[in-house]
Amino acid sequence: MKFSPLISELIAGLKCLPGVGQKSAQRMAFHLLERNREGALSLSQSLFNAMEHVKHCAKCRTFTESQLCDICADPIRGEHATMCVVESPQDMLAIEQTAEFKGRYFVLMGHLSPIDGIGPADIGMPELANELKKGAVEEVILATNPTVEGEATAHYIAELCKEHNVIASRIAHGVPFGGELEYIDGNTLTHAFAGRKAL
Amino acid sequence: MKFSPLISELIAGLKCLPGVGQKSAQRMAFHLLERNREGALSLSQSLFNAMEHVKHCAKCRTFTESQLCDICADPIRGEHATMCVVESPQDMLAIEQTAEFKGRYFVLMGHLSPIDGIGPADIGMPELANELKKGAVEEVILATNPTVEGEATAHYIAELCKEHNVIASRIAHGVPFGGELEYIDGNTLTHAFAGRKAL
Repeated sequence: MKFSPLISELIAGLKCLPGVGQKSAQRMAFHLLERNREGALSLSQSLFNAMEHVKHCAKCRTFTESQLCDICADPIRGEHATMCVVESPQDMLAIEQTAEFKGRYFVLMGHLSPIDGIGPADIGMPELANELKKGAVEEVILATNPTVEGEATAHYIAELCKEHNVIASRIAHGVPFGGELEYIDGNTLTHAFAGRKAL
Repeated sequence: MKFSPLISELIAGLKCLPGVGQKSAQRMAFHLLERNREGALSLSQSLFNAMEHVKHCAKCRTFTESQLCDICADPIRGEHATMCVVESPQDMLAIEQTAEFKGRYFVLMGHLSPIDGIGPADIGMPELANELKKGAVEEVILATNPTVEGEATAHYIAELCKEHNVIASRIAHGVPFGGELEYIDGNTLTHAFAGRKAL
């Protein structure tokens, strides 16, 4: 026995969500059918709208349905001399939530990963070079993840900055606030010692 | 900073799925936007189709888009003398997967729960009484969950069967196959002893 065709299709559809397998998809499908048909209809509509209309910002490559995202469209922030390079829109949100950084962004939408066939063109390097060529950017802050790929990407972009005479800086790596030294990995501790500052 | 309106709506929409909070919804939204727009569009369509067309089977109350579900529409199974009563379509699927039971079903779509305001009419008792009145059912197998509400529901239906001179039976409770006695709760063990059979 299987579920009726429309229910089977719904379960198969829900499995395209990350982290959702057969059982979770069944639970979601029946939850929506039993308790939240309105929510499901509105989700159906938002999925359609987002997939049809969300494109990349022409300037920083983040996701947006407009030509430019809110930050790039801002006359002050969009032409700011400091540019922060991040891997994803979620990283951009995390930085925005600190309300510390007031410059513009460039979103790679990934990182260099030759093994997966992701080269410089896939992470917007031609667009970034264009932006640097204009001469408005004075400093590029590299906020890619502290992983092997993130570090390689940061180094690649630092070289690009050198070519265009733009200062490149990397966010600090060290012991996170609230962390306990006892539980912090050796790599992070090594970075924390190497990056020590005079008090 | 927030995401653009369409992305925020998509994230809010995904949060109506059970077990999905803000962070998971963000992860799902960006995963779909970056890697699976086609899958998302097809999910949007299946959600719409299922919510608009899936209703309850006129006979057993399970979910289906037809007038009768596959089992009720089957000329042999749909008029079978043995009826199995379950709480949900998922329970029905679990029993069908054993391929042991060849009779018909009645799906309560819940269980009696006075504290949540769920009474006999909400779990289809009038429809079940109607079905029993027709005289075609000889035995009702009560396969509700072994919880307080499931047991109460089973007792309620057993009384209804008595009124209509139909045999009511309850599935056996005991030690599950592959279980180890050491780790089985006292309640289950008590049931296993009380329900012992002569060899």
